Amino acid sequence: MKVRVAVSLKPGVLDPQGRAIHHALEGLGFSGVRDVRAGRLIELDVADETPDSAIEEMCRKLLANQVIENYRIEKVAG
Amino acid sequence: MKVRVAVSLKPGVLDPQGRAIHHALEGLGFSGVRDVRAGRLIELDVADETPDSAIEEMCRKLLANQVIENYRIEKVAG
Repeated sequence: MKVRVAVSLKPGVLDPQGRAIHHALEGLGFSGVRDVRAGRLIELDVADETPDSAIEEMCRKLLANQVIENYRIEKVAG
Repeated sequence: MKVRVAVSLKPGVLDPQGRAIHHALEGLGFSGVRDVRAGRLIELDVADETPDSAIEEMCRKLLANQVIENYRIEKVAG
């Protein structure tokens, strides 16, 4: 089973990486970009019988820092 | 308009970050994890009139290194 975990900074948390990307896009001449936030995407291939609770626990214990980050779990078909 | 760009390493490209996460999950006692790949998630807030071609071009020119990475563009409702 393929599972995607998207980890993004909580609103209000300073995001220097996102700001650098924003400035670089402007430097390349792209206009109309209002905001950029950078996050992580972790793709897991887990055994089909893995319960949702185990995936939640992986996020809480390792994949996301819940003080400053939110995570979102998406199961991928196939 | 919110747009999410998911950048992930192409299959076959060595992923030390993903491997480190895999080992850490095993060390925490999670079994049944077969593979872990680490990527980036870039959330853009762009003007509503931004054409798809401009977003494609941002990916090709800055956000993804197409030699070793694939990108996927998702428009987020709202």
